[in-house]
Amino acid sequence: MLLTPAFAAQNAASPLAPHSIDRREPGPHDVLIDIAYCGVCHSDIHQARDEWGGSIFPMVPGHEIVGHVAKVGGAVTRWKVGDAVGVGCFVDSCRVCESCKAGEEQFCSEGMTGTYNGRERGTKAPTYGGYSTRITVNEDYVLRIPEGMPLDRAAPLLCAGITTYSPLRHFGVKAGDRVAVVGLGGLGHMGVKIARALGAHVTVLSSSPGKRADALALGADDFVATREADGFRANAGRFDFILDTVSAPHDYNAYLSLLKRDGTMVLVGVPDAPAPVHAFSLVMQRRRLAGSLIGGIRETQEMLDFCAAHGIASDIELIPMQSINEAYERMIKGDVRYRFVIDISSLKAA
Amino acid sequence: MLLTPAFAAQNAASPLAPHSIDRREPGPHDVLIDIAYCGVCHSDIHQARDEWGGSIFPMVPGHEIVGHVAKVGGAVTRWKVGDAVGVGCFVDSCRVCESCKAGEEQFCSEGMTGTYNGRERGTKAPTYGGYSTRITVNEDYVLRIPEGMPLDRAAPLLCAGITTYSPLRHFGVKAGDRVAVVGLGGLGHMGVKIARALGAHVTVLSSSPGKRADALALGADDFVATREADGFRANAGRFDFILDTVSAPHDYNAYLSLLKRDGTMVLVGVPDAPAPVHAFSLVMQRRRLAGSLIGGIRETQEMLDFCAAHGIASDIELIPMQSINEAYERMIKGDVRYRFVIDISSLKAA
Repeated sequence: MLLTPAFAAQNAASPLAPHSIDRREPGPHDVLIDIAYCGVCHSDIHQARDEWGGSIFPMVPGHEIVGHVAKVGGAVTRWKVGDAVGVGCFVDSCRVCESCKAGEEQFCSEGMTGTYNGRERGTKAPTYGGYSTRITVNEDYVLRIPEGMPLDRAAPLLCAGITTYSPLRHFGVKAGDRVAVVGLGGLGHMGVKIARALGAHVTVLSSSPGKRADALALGADDFVATREADGFRANAGRFDFILDTVSAPHDYNAYLSLLKRDGTMVLVGVPDAPAPVHAFSLVMQRRRLAGSLIGGIRETQEMLDFCAAHGIASDIELIPMQSINEAYERMIKGDVRYRFVIDISSLKAA
Repeated sequence: MLLTPAFAAQNAASPLAPHSIDRREPGPHDVLIDIAYCGVCHSDIHQARDEWGGSIFPMVPGHEIVGHVAKVGGAVTRWKVGDAVGVGCFVDSCRVCESCKAGEEQFCSEGMTGTYNGRERGTKAPTYGGYSTRITVNEDYVLRIPEGMPLDRAAPLLCAGITTYSPLRHFGVKAGDRVAVVGLGGLGHMGVKIARALGAHVTVLSSSPGKRADALALGADDFVATREADGFRANAGRFDFILDTVSAPHDYNAYLSLLKRDGTMVLVGVPDAPAPVHAFSLVMQRRRLAGSLIGGIRETQEMLDFCAAHGIASDIELIPMQSINEAYERMIKGDVRYRFVIDISSLKAA
């Protein structure tokens, strides 16, 4: 076992604090990764505070992991020491169900194995995430960070990037499409960049009028302040596709009214409570409301390569591990542009 | 003007009773149709009782019209006296918007002109439906009833048929797909027949266990009584496509759980109130919830030809015009297998 420094929540009410975990020695098909950076996802907060239930403590969050290969198992041929690699939201799956065989491991019929707050398929031991100095991962669940991509700004691509890339691609957004991105946070700002790189005409819909300049600077073609009078009526039937990144309660019917005939709105944010949907909102203009969940390994690699080819990375604020609790409070207030990334060297030095 | 016997509701509270309306003499592009049969759609009741608001009285309902051409305008070449023809839910549209040009007149940006309870585009005069002995319709909004199709059983195809055919085709249901039809009424029974003819494996989901035998007799391969314990859990992730024909309140989340990855549930029934949808129901397995509204003229003709080729027509109970109020009461109780059709000769004789 490899004793590894980490930051953990001991229970739902405790702040994150220094902790030690054991990482397994790499087996024949494993890769040991020396973690350089780890992005901070809003779901880290939900799980560390057990807001979704079922959390496993002590918990080491973090599923936007980037680092370098430190050691490889005897049967590993694809990875070598020093490779820049990433790990996203899951580290294993059954590999044999229809979804796994289709490369959609996130929908594994036995449930993907979460990078943290999950349990290993074999031993049922808890999994621990990227708020730590190293991690051992099966070679098939490791991503390659393209050459030249800044590692710190790459970290959020492993969750925020694929969460927005996957629906934009899966639902066929193409050059010239009118795309709206609802919410300009960690997910939304990646949605704007990727939709723009796909050639779409991108409009940001936000309840914060102050985000207009930022939206345009990120590459959006237009901005609609949704709390302004007539914000919805004036944009009725305008969009081919809406990427809804908001997890706070909001009226889906109002947003659906902005879709053209045969338009699709995809939810990637999951509000705590169900929201009322009127059949009329869907029947008129044959609209579609769908959901999307991260992406498979193959598609995540495709997303990284796409981002590299288009010079896209996340806009981040780099923090030391020791600032994580303050970062959580700022995230809850929406005070980050657009993703905190932990510099894991701060944990090694401590 | 052509004085025409009809049955009308004088206001939201009055039963339907004999009434006279004026039909226009056919203009150059019009067809005068001698009505033989008119199906009774649940929306006839909603509108005659002003349950959706905005009803225009006196109202002559009926948008499942079948009859024969009695006279054609001077410029009409496609239709000749004696042709068996039908009229569905609309009799006009703008013809120039994107939807009209795409043959999706039901989504006309100016609003389709309802066959009844609408207003003519030019004169703004109220439109009157098929509970009458004849109707004058622009030639472009007339459908051809294929040779050999029984006229009375064809009538419900003009609404119930196209309402179920259109989503099954638009969303790409194909041979071998696992299709569920929710609700076995006027819409549902057509959904079963059409999905079966498309080669799908069809399961009826119904809250009435007593409909099992009927479902199988109509061609369903399987039946699930949704009120039985475990009805939902035992069928989780089973279907590629769900056609939801129910207008009563029901839990969309429970039905969405029955979809496979990337499955689609299409609403063709419109409950009065919005229903709660949890984002989780869509995000997991990347499911889609959509709506569909009748179909365009071209697709309605395609549906009629498809039904003729597959020997499909509606299962009906033929009634005289004078029994319409009793029929409404029976429909509200779900006591019809599966569509009332008015024999309009009863109105001519009266």
